[in-house]
Amino acid sequence: MENKFAKWGLKGQKEATVTIRDILETIKKQVKKDDEKPMIHLGHGDPSAYSCFRTTPVAEEAVNRALRSAKFNGYAPAAGLPESRRAVAEFLSKDLPYKLSEEDIFITAGAAHAIELILTVLARPGANILLPRPGYPSYEAHSTFLDQEVRNFDLLPEKGWEIDLDGVEALADDNTVAMVVINPGNPSGSVFTPEHLQKIAETAKRLGIVLISDEVYYDLVFGGNKFVPMGVFGSVTPVVSLGTMSKRWLVPGWRLGWIALSDPNGILKRTGITDCIKKYRNISPDSTTLIQGAIPEILEKTPKDFISNIVVLLREAAEACYSNIIEIPYLDSPQKPEGAMSTMVKLNLDMLEGIEDDMDFCLRLAKEESVLVLPGSVLGLKNWLRISFATDVASLEEGLQRIKAFCLRHSNMIM
Amino acid sequence: MENKFAKWGLKGQKEATVTIRDILETIKKQVKKDDEKPMIHLGHGDPSAYSCFRTTPVAEEAVNRALRSAKFNGYAPAAGLPESRRAVAEFLSKDLPYKLSEEDIFITAGAAHAIELILTVLARPGANILLPRPGYPSYEAHSTFLDQEVRNFDLLPEKGWEIDLDGVEALADDNTVAMVVINPGNPSGSVFTPEHLQKIAETAKRLGIVLISDEVYYDLVFGGNKFVPMGVFGSVTPVVSLGTMSKRWLVPGWRLGWIALSDPNGILKRTGITDCIKKYRNISPDSTTLIQGAIPEILEKTPKDFISNIVVLLREAAEACYSNIIEIPYLDSPQKPEGAMSTMVKLNLDMLEGIEDDMDFCLRLAKEESVLVLPGSVLGLKNWLRISFATDVASLEEGLQRIKAFCLRHSNMIM
Repeated sequence: MENKFAKWGLKGQKEATVTIRDILETIKKQVKKDDEKPMIHLGHGDPSAYSCFRTTPVAEEAVNRALRSAKFNGYAPAAGLPESRRAVAEFLSKDLPYKLSEEDIFITAGAAHAIELILTVLARPGANILLPRPGYPSYEAHSTFLDQEVRNFDLLPEKGWEIDLDGVEALADDNTVAMVVINPGNPSGSVFTPEHLQKIAETAKRLGIVLISDEVYYDLVFGGNKFVPMGVFGSVTPVVSLGTMSKRWLVPGWRLGWIALSDPNGILKRTGITDCIKKYRNISPDSTTLIQGAIPEILEKTPKDFISNIVVLLREAAEACYSNIIEIPYLDSPQKPEGAMSTMVKLNLDMLEGIEDDMDFCLRLAKEESVLVLPGSVLGLKNWLRISFATDVASLEEGLQRIKAFCLRHSNMIM
Repeated sequence: MENKFAKWGLKGQKEATVTIRDILETIKKQVKKDDEKPMIHLGHGDPSAYSCFRTTPVAEEAVNRALRSAKFNGYAPAAGLPESRRAVAEFLSKDLPYKLSEEDIFITAGAAHAIELILTVLARPGANILLPRPGYPSYEAHSTFLDQEVRNFDLLPEKGWEIDLDGVEALADDNTVAMVVINPGNPSGSVFTPEHLQKIAETAKRLGIVLISDEVYYDLVFGGNKFVPMGVFGSVTPVVSLGTMSKRWLVPGWRLGWIALSDPNGILKRTGITDCIKKYRNISPDSTTLIQGAIPEILEKTPKDFISNIVVLLREAAEACYSNIIEIPYLDSPQKPEGAMSTMVKLNLDMLEGIEDDMDFCLRLAKEESVLVLPGSVLGLKNWLRISFATDVASLEEGLQRIKAFCLRHSNMIM
């Protein structure tokens, strides 16, 4: 067997896929155990470890009830339990000018799985896909794995991280299948205006490509712009929205996401894309029936003040994050985050002695200060950092103070 | 967009993948609502709807505790929580001549996901894989999807559904990557002897291929043969075992499975296969952290009599199934099932008037008698049926009586 597999080697592209957790694992290995200086994780969008970010008792109670009923121990249909699909359709329809039905929703094992599903369905030999830079690396990882060419369009930091739509038009050709929009922005923390969303939809329509709208941070906004789901423009061009319970209910580990098809003109159906999702959904892993069984109750009964309280916490964290960052001359922050759970800052490497690049910065920071942040190069922006503020404010401020101390220690400036 | 996608069409192979739930959905559509004659489902291996097959309170309590602790709401590492991997390693090691470690276990979102994972990792251009006939269609569906050639070897009904190993040797060539063994047998209900398992391992070694052992029905046996995991022969050839909580704990909807590498000689590691599993696991969907968090307690505290009671129930069901089937002259049963949750019977179509084939039989049976069984053609054996006995005995006997009535009604014999 060794001869045989050595001769073949393993499929090369499988080596090329890099994910956030890969990189964070590598960086985390640098952290020394130190009870005086516990690790502070500003690297991922998972605040569930902090008690202030515990999910609502409504969600826990709904899962417990599903568990005790013993009605949700068996297999669910591939697309999800009908009542769960219906509940998600109703939840999303509240913010849309038309109604989604059960048939428009496919339950997935988290949003990461929704990404895999839609990219797999759209993949074909010779195709390319347009992804934002900075972006979320799962899209690139799956595209690479599927042998799809990735073309990156820019988000413009000087324009509140809006999409460079001229760039999008220039990149697209006859082999472009789709473009991905992430709003609220991960990693940027931006929130797009309805005007910008409409322009995006019109661009996708003109190019004849599928518009994939990543709404993992659905309605988690706390700046000037209100959140508007891309599906509002579903009559301009069909929208494939990706959603999840993970962020809004603070339970990323429950692995419950969905694909929602906002397609009032039936274009996805006529092109066969809907049917293809159905078919691939059928051989793809399922979300836990137990959590599916709890969704209708969770969506119906979660009190408004649970969500508004999270938004208050995130606003405080975002403000603490921004005000601390602008005090650190080694970091440039183009914009105060207005949504989601992270922000992008530029490293002023000229002012730092012997730090090679963003990855080097992150590795040393982990080693010296036990703070984790994500190197921007993983997201397509070299020598930037993604700082997540999905923590309690005390940890966040402590983390940023440690980053400041680290920069000062490595400064080449005469202070 | 319609022009563009119409021109391309959707990737053809995505149409070719057929799964059990696909077919059962189609068959189920024939069933008429009739309160006098409720539907009896003898089509799948999911007995969780019957109160006698409710999971142990230990499992429910462990999940509840994980839920209430709020410690398992966040992301888990890609390979699974370390404590869950360790618990599975210990559980499996009890039946092996050496110890598995945490590193040998990869937690998956159910066994179906474990199948997808290992087939994807082994896929490469021009490769082929050896699958049993009759088999479990997910293997074929994923292989087709991955553009891998499928070559079927026979299970021999006259030899207790043992593998035709001469056939395996004849099918394999330099491009064969793996063979799949399902023990306890799905769909056959057979249980292989240690002697046969050893011969299988030696064959895989000689051919230099990966031995994938599907042990979804781990230790659910009730005939003459004791269950022996294939990993016992890991020193002959490395074994990739696929396991799950689904059947043993009667919770297929919880979606918790695993890949276990029984590789005491480190061959999977040296060939890079282990590393490739790690990497692909990283971009593949996760199992719910909540259930992962409950595993150590479930594996440690499940009382022995819970499992032995399931085995008693399955033995009774298997016996009721067999004794009813041999009373139906239109069906031939080569063997009383000794494990798992189903059996294969041959349709004597010569004795039935106007029934075209197994699919026709199943569709009409559903329509006329509201009984679901699976046509063997889905599993590679045309004009056979897979009858699942994962039900309470009353429903099973009622279902088989209805099958008998159906056959008598369509008989062309002079009785």
